[in-house]
Amino acid sequence: MRIAVDAAGGDHGPAVVVAGALDGARRFGVSLLLTGEEPEIRGAVAASDAAGVDVLIEHAPEIIDGHEQPAQAVRRKPRSAIAVALDAVRDGRAEALVSAGNSGAVMAGALLKLGRIRGIERPAIAGYLPAIGGMTLVLDMGAVTDPRPSHLVQFAQMGSIYIERAFGVADPKVGLLSNGEEPSKGNQLVQETFPLLVAAPGIHFHGNVEGNDITRGVVDVVVTDGFTGNVALKTAEGAASLINATVRRRLTASWRRAMLAALLRPAFDEVRKELDYAEQGGAPLLGIDGVVIISHGRSNERAIASAIGVAKRSVEGEVPGTIARLMATLEPARQSAAAAGM
Amino acid sequence: MRIAVDAAGGDHGPAVVVAGALDGARRFGVSLLLTGEEPEIRGAVAASDAAGVDVLIEHAPEIIDGHEQPAQAVRRKPRSAIAVALDAVRDGRAEALVSAGNSGAVMAGALLKLGRIRGIERPAIAGYLPAIGGMTLVLDMGAVTDPRPSHLVQFAQMGSIYIERAFGVADPKVGLLSNGEEPSKGNQLVQETFPLLVAAPGIHFHGNVEGNDITRGVVDVVVTDGFTGNVALKTAEGAASLINATVRRRLTASWRRAMLAALLRPAFDEVRKELDYAEQGGAPLLGIDGVVIISHGRSNERAIASAIGVAKRSVEGEVPGTIARLMATLEPARQSAAAAGM
Repeated sequence: MRIAVDAAGGDHGPAVVVAGALDGARRFGVSLLLTGEEPEIRGAVAASDAAGVDVLIEHAPEIIDGHEQPAQAVRRKPRSAIAVALDAVRDGRAEALVSAGNSGAVMAGALLKLGRIRGIERPAIAGYLPAIGGMTLVLDMGAVTDPRPSHLVQFAQMGSIYIERAFGVADPKVGLLSNGEEPSKGNQLVQETFPLLVAAPGIHFHGNVEGNDITRGVVDVVVTDGFTGNVALKTAEGAASLINATVRRRLTASWRRAMLAALLRPAFDEVRKELDYAEQGGAPLLGIDGVVIISHGRSNERAIASAIGVAKRSVEGEVPGTIARLMATLEPARQSAAAAGM
Repeated sequence: MRIAVDAAGGDHGPAVVVAGALDGARRFGVSLLLTGEEPEIRGAVAASDAAGVDVLIEHAPEIIDGHEQPAQAVRRKPRSAIAVALDAVRDGRAEALVSAGNSGAVMAGALLKLGRIRGIERPAIAGYLPAIGGMTLVLDMGAVTDPRPSHLVQFAQMGSIYIERAFGVADPKVGLLSNGEEPSKGNQLVQETFPLLVAAPGIHFHGNVEGNDITRGVVDVVVTDGFTGNVALKTAEGAASLINATVRRRLTASWRRAMLAALLRPAFDEVRKELDYAEQGGAPLLGIDGVVIISHGRSNERAIASAIGVAKRSVEGEVPGTIARLMATLEPARQSAAAAGM
């Protein structure tokens, strides 16, 4: 299995992406196709430990910057790293894409070059939050800021398939993010979505969940609109940063404390590792006819390596194909609902 | 100044509410009017240290439980603790209400008995999140799940007045919660609200802020719809609980660690105190023609005491009167906008 990696993406530059990709390729036993500025990539590969990894490089000199309108940028720059990597996936030279680049451009490019799965109305980005006993998948994380109820139903179906096929979670439970557990709670979108999820095929609907249930691990998949999902993830990140900074300040407020804290360093490292998003790094773009994994722009090497693993699991679990099969079985019902104007 | 306290509210029962109220009254130099089951309150007062606190009790035997429709419950139970306390505020026997009861019933009762400030379209609940260097006020926290853009503008104005008048924050900065900083980001509500906030009188609009900016203290007031605000607050609480549980588990994984951690106990206590919502406990219901402070149902004594302080500051800062004055100056513009169908 060969995985295409957008070596131009990410805030830390090609060296970090390439080193992480090589590490991930070795750890998960896959080959790589690196796209970007070829000399730069060659240099990064030479500077890293590439022993035993099958690496191809495709030159892609065009740069998409953060200020460009994503869909236009991908069209206008067919030789950008994202576009070349997506071509490779479309044409079968690679089986998945990992990118830490502009997520809007990745989405636009994936829609343009790989297309949506038949029957899927809107692709969604699924992210993880750490939870007691593992992690919780939350989608959408920002692809669809104003979804319709039918979109949220598909998010629930896609998220369930992903976490079952790529992570082996049997019969995953789905929660609908709300401001209270009772079915009567929620904004208009949530209240309209609730009965649809109760009736939806292919999922195990648990009911409404609240913000604090995400990290409690009450359900495996939390469904929400992309605006709320994005705010929730970033608010949780912010809370973690504040706690981290406060603990650090209080534990170094005196020499005695700093010395004691230093002796507990391994425990704090374990906490960080257990809760670090990088361990699960790589958010799948679900609903696309191909495996596309979006990494956080500020991904470090470990996060990129982890994303390679997520890509491999998605390919092996045939996530897009499984979503396509569910959609195909639902097609008649969907068409009659559409005809009825629902 | 006398503050009415709904002694029947709160998950921990009257004893905790009464003890917290007495503590707060002493600390902040105010008198109390306690409403609820009189014998029970007398017992709780006798069991606490009430020395030097001027306490009146009004018997209110009716109970509003969590399953009742809030507006109906307040109407049908005029002798409930919430209703009696609100009557006292309306009739001038007390100058503010503190309640840890059913927040829906508090809101419904406040609207019924105290009414909205003229010109305010929807009252909002303003909550705090701890932030670097202090706290951030976030509103709405759940009163209005599907606001219109004009509601968010009023939330910005009310939040600014509150934090300036009750907490002495000069020229408070307002951020609009979004999924990206750029003005083009956001769901439809946020995109429509942005230009209104740019033009709104009475506020210092900073621009869009993201979830992680709340705890970074980038702005003093964060404005959002009540659905997203509720999810954000609870997600942050959930993240804090998970981190707390993980740290505790790792720090007690061996005898040696547990011993070292015990020596650092004062540092961890400082962290907890610094970040504890109880220190700022008490969320004002803004837009009501009176001071109404809603405490978390699971408030402990310290949170109730803190809410007494928040109530006193709101009365002294003339928060409702200041909001009313701003609305009065905006009334002509509001009426012409309404006439133009905006």
